[in-house]
Amino acid sequence: MRAARYYGKEDIRIEDVAEAPCSEGQVRVSPAFVGICGTDLHEYLGGPTFAPTSPHPVTGDTIPITLGHEFSGIIKEIGQGVEGLKVGQHVVVQPTIYCGSCGACNCGVENVCYNGGFIGLSGKWGGLSDSVVVPANAILSLPPSIPLEIGALVEPLSVAWHAISAAPLKPESTVLVLGGGPIGLAIVQCLVAVQTKKIIMSEVSKSRQRFAREFGAHHVLDPKTYDLVAISKELSGSDGPDIVFDCAGVPASITTACLAVKARGTVVNVAIWEKEVPFQPNMLVFREAQYKAVLGYQRKDFQAVIDNLANGRLKPERMITSKIKLENLVEEGILALINDKEKHVKILVEVGAK
Amino acid sequence: MRAARYYGKEDIRIEDVAEAPCSEGQVRVSPAFVGICGTDLHEYLGGPTFAPTSPHPVTGDTIPITLGHEFSGIIKEIGQGVEGLKVGQHVVVQPTIYCGSCGACNCGVENVCYNGGFIGLSGKWGGLSDSVVVPANAILSLPPSIPLEIGALVEPLSVAWHAISAAPLKPESTVLVLGGGPIGLAIVQCLVAVQTKKIIMSEVSKSRQRFAREFGAHHVLDPKTYDLVAISKELSGSDGPDIVFDCAGVPASITTACLAVKARGTVVNVAIWEKEVPFQPNMLVFREAQYKAVLGYQRKDFQAVIDNLANGRLKPERMITSKIKLENLVEEGILALINDKEKHVKILVEVGAK
Ligand SMILES: NC(=O)c1ccc[n+]([C@@H]2O[C@H](COP(=O)([O-])OP(=O)(O)OC[C@H]3O[C@@H](n4cnc5c(N)ncnc54)[C@H](O)[C@@H]3O)[C@@H](O)[C@H]2O)c1
Ligand SMILES: NC(=O)c1ccc[n+]([C@@H]2O[C@H](COP(=O)([O-])OP(=O)(O)OC[C@H]3O[C@@H](n4cnc5c(N)ncnc54)[C@H](O)[C@@H]3O)[C@@H](O)[C@H]2O)c1
Ligand SMILES: [Zn+2]
Ligand SMILES: [Zn+2]
Ligand SMILES: [Zn+2]
Ligand SMILES: [Zn+2]
Repeated sequence: MRAARYYGKEDIRIEDVAEAPCSEGQVRVSPAFVGICGTDLHEYLGGPTFAPTSPHPVTGDTIPITLGHEFSGIIKEIGQGVEGLKVGQHVVVQPTIYCGSCGACNCGVENVCYNGGFIGLSGKWGGLSDSVVVPANAILSLPPSIPLEIGALVEPLSVAWHAISAAPLKPESTVLVLGGGPIGLAIVQCLVAVQTKKIIMSEVSKSRQRFAREFGAHHVLDPKTYDLVAISKELSGSDGPDIVFDCAGVPASITTACLAVKARGTVVNVAIWEKEVPFQPNMLVFREAQYKAVLGYQRKDFQAVIDNLANGRLKPERMITSKIKLENLVEEGILALINDKEKHVKILVEVGAK
Repeated sequence: MRAARYYGKEDIRIEDVAEAPCSEGQVRVSPAFVGICGTDLHEYLGGPTFAPTSPHPVTGDTIPITLGHEFSGIIKEIGQGVEGLKVGQHVVVQPTIYCGSCGACNCGVENVCYNGGFIGLSGKWGGLSDSVVVPANAILSLPPSIPLEIGALVEPLSVAWHAISAAPLKPESTVLVLGGGPIGLAIVQCLVAVQTKKIIMSEVSKSRQRFAREFGAHHVLDPKTYDLVAISKELSGSDGPDIVFDCAGVPASITTACLAVKARGTVVNVAIWEKEVPFQPNMLVFREAQYKAVLGYQRKDFQAVIDNLANGRLKPERMITSKIKLENLVEEGILALINDKEKHVKILVEVGAK
């Protein structure tokens, strides 16, 4: 079968490999659509970062690994002892890998497992292949009303759902979202799904501003033109946004977030940071604000997204800005995103399960 | 009457001034004991910072101002329209001054009022005088079982009570307190009052370590000798402390706090920061932790402290390390604290109301 294997910086190869066996408690999925995300680009441009260069504590694998962690597919085989699933069923895979015994896992926060990783980044097997074997508890069933290509969007939408669930959100909240990349845009959609009254997006790229409008942000502003602290306070009609999501992760965004948020408001940080930033905690002190960090998702976030796709509150079709074939992954996928990032929200690889 | 007036850097004068009139809605208090705190030292050494050099937005006053914001006293006169209070009653004053109309006040967070201040820092009148007139709603009654000198400790204990109230504290929590100055030590006492199972204090000064032990911290460690992140994780018997209080406010403490706290734990920042610090938000991201800032107190915190003094859960007598006379304020109070900070927790000025 085909698999897109990552060997290191700027080295991804579409190779022919043997299928894994489907053991007890496992399920074989044939991937249908697979999203490419920023993490994949980082590995390509500057990795290996996530991809293990020594045996991964949970998978035991080392590069080359198979990429693809945002995917939908069809069940092809069911291992012994697995109940409630059947061959032919459309599914989505929750790719979190966790150890089950570290401090974080013991606190029930598997999504930050200190030994963790992802199917499609941390081991031999990933979604960018004709067949992937995963634990049965990683599978969520995709209702027939939801197309398989939309299923591939469940993962990035779950990052966003997890983030909005960490905030004390109410229908009457005013929310400021900093950064309109795939994650910021997914947050806008989740906020729309829960009928948030006022959604303000700050983004520098014109094409991403357009996406934000399409997805339902009520005010879309360029931080180069506007003083976001002042205008978001004004638009809130109160002391400032109740909640600010930082999906940009740059020195300017953390400062804007902490100065814009209202007294006792919440900054939710979704960004992953490349380096230390200068920070003055008094920004939070003098408004008694809180700064909450989130990472990844849990199974319940995947289920909530699927439910909201099924009931029509989430309509993410327009996130798909291109569909490509597996053999064109690097040229039309990775490199297209690197060179033309702002034109795209999600490029899906059509692997082809039917 | 006598008043300790602050004119600017290193310029505090004990002067003879006229009493203020006691108008409608106001109460005249004759201060008994007044605590000196870090803010007073800052004003003396490097101010005016808090003390207004142009008319204060709420009080309208400019330096010289009268110092003294941590005090107990006796009611001497009651203005028109004030009910439920009587002359001769022992009281404590909640010194927060707020505008009632800014964004913070509109959010019900008067303690961070953007135009706010304190009786004893922001206006003509303060506790370090023979008579101070305050709004009736600033008064809390001190039960006869609580001595007036203990009443002067209610303010710093309320900072601590407010801070512990912001944390998701449970009796079985493990808590790490960074910094054993008056505020950190007050937090230890409040944690003991609510019967917290494990209290770990990190402090560099030997004499403050001794105070921490006396006040009931279960483990008192020097961060120069111990790796606080590692040892607090070990002592927690889990992924780390459930809650960390930063009462030090230095680059080392924010890093220790964020790296020690357990997955989904809470860092409560009580410190006020002198400058920006280098900060890597990923410390919070990779454990989904939250960083909550607190400032000051509200009336309910004062009431909770008084209740816990009355029922004996708070026993702060030993915080009082010296009692001095008003005429010796600078020599035996301010300068003693500057030169011999670590020997003291609270120096009280005995103003003398009887
Ligand atoms: N927490 C998680 O589980 C998780 C998952 C995926 C991605 N992430 C992180 O979330 C962040 C966003 O991901 P993405 O894929 O959308 O990234 P992205 O780089 O595509 O998007 C970031 C956007 O922020 C904009 N931006 C930059 N500076 C700005 C500023 N000062 N004000 C407003 N906007 C600004 C950029 O123009 C860009 O569109 C990244 O840090 C990523 O690492 C986190
Ligand atoms: N939030 C509020 O309302 C409020 C009120 C009063 C004071 N404060 C602030 O709280 C903080 C504490 O106040 P304080 O009066 O106790 O101050 P303090 O300076 O007397 O105490 C700070 C203590 O921290 C210790 N320390 C320094 N570096 C340390 C480290 N790396 N690890 C452990 N301990 C370390 C010092 O030895 C000192 O004992 C200050 O920042 C002050 O401005 C806040
Ligand atoms: Zn991804
Ligand atoms: Zn784990
Ligand atoms: Zn004080
Ligand atoms: Zn106000």
